[in-house]
Amino acid sequence: VTIESAALRVLPVFAGVDDAVLAEIARLGEMREFAPEAVLLEQGTMADHLHVLLSGQVGLTARSSEGRSTVVEVLRAVDVFFLAAVLTDAPYLMGAIALERSRLLLVPAPALRGLVDDSLPLARAMLAALSRHYRMLARQVADLKLRTSTQRLGCYLLALARELKAPGEFRLPYDKRLLAGRLGMTPENLSRAFAALRDYGVETHGARVVLHDMNALERFALPDAIV
Amino acid sequence: VTIESAALRVLPVFAGVDDAVLAEIARLGEMREFAPEAVLLEQGTMADHLHVLLSGQVGLTARSSEGRSTVVEVLRAVDVFFLAAVLTDAPYLMGAIALERSRLLLVPAPALRGLVDDSLPLARAMLAALSRHYRMLARQVADLKLRTSTQRLGCYLLALARELKAPGEFRLPYDKRLLAGRLGMTPENLSRAFAALRDYGVETHGARVVLHDMNALERFALPDAIV
Repeated sequence: VTIESAALRVLPVFAGVDDAVLAEIARLGEMREFAPEAVLLEQGTMADHLHVLLSGQVGLTARSSEGRSTVVEVLRAVDVFFLAAVLTDAPYLMGAIALERSRLLLVPAPALRGLVDDSLPLARAMLAALSRHYRMLARQVADLKLRTSTQRLGCYLLALARELKAPGEFRLPYDKRLLAGRLGMTPENLSRAFAALRDYGVETHGARVVLHDMNALERFALPDAIV
Repeated sequence: VTIESAALRVLPVFAGVDDAVLAEIARLGEMREFAPEAVLLEQGTMADHLHVLLSGQVGLTARSSEGRSTVVEVLRAVDVFFLAAVLTDAPYLMGAIALERSRLLLVPAPALRGLVDDSLPLARAMLAALSRHYRMLARQVADLKLRTSTQRLGCYLLALARELKAPGEFRLPYDKRLLAGRLGMTPENLSRAFAALRDYGVETHGARVVLHDMNALERFALPDAIV
């Protein structure tokens, strides 16, 4: 399976990149499709491909020396990832799993580095993507250090309601075990946090969430003013 | 006070950047000196300068809506920071304080963006710096999610011993309140963690740390194989 450079041109992550470079990325890249829960790669191996997520949803995972595993970040199409590892020619610090059926374009790392070395528009596009990812992680570190786990869950639900433009009622986009990892808690802690949020109008039925009083939830969870 | 572009040319963060661009950075930049504990800036304001840390040590800080504050990351000279905020023309997600007497070159954000737009070597140098910072944060998120606070302290001491090439005995580079923030715990938790590490041969006298049994500490704290 191949991809046309025209399909890459419309992607915001490649905004401003010239056609010749996109054609080269399309030519070098390999299209892959992954089933839900498929492991894309394990952390610790040398970065061999830039990953362009064309459709679906991927979790970046970390595993401790004693084998515990957690989802560090969730990425939705369209996005690029493993950029820092590819650019610094270093081992992957995180693994990756497909959270739903996902299509990816895998671009060999040495070729990608060569293209970045020659193309200022590509270097700028990669800087923009990496800046965005850096800020996602910076928010997450502050969140982990400054909030209780129940506040973190509250902030997450408020952000999701805003993003889905469904303030009253929505479905969680992935299962509770994954959500617990993303928020830095155990599944048991997540259940307790959902129970504690009932006092602030949060009702859950499986993956369905109803927010009855967003103001009360905001006063408790104290989301950042900077979004 | 001004800086010569020759002084910038020797800095690893500007490796490969042409003299004309460095001369422009030197011309546009403003040299500033900060006393220990001086606040460089508060989070939430629009990013107006790229910060080049020429000497000293700076803490990137986060403050919650209820006023709690913590050190997210510690940077030592020579380094650049607030790159992601400057490149995306966004508000600073973190504040910054001087942890010791520090000299910085402040480069106006619009001018820096203009230079990155025109200079591939500068864009590549900034990509390298941002990749390094992204990986620092990614390690920290995994650390916060996968380890107990006592294990985090153990990993931190092992990394410090390796970095200072002083496996047996060394001094903590900053005070315990800051260290607690960096490791995502309260000062009380940090004291308890130091006490718990006595079982693994960790002795402390104020800022002085002696590691009597690094193997035992490694078996307990389980540092990453990927460094």
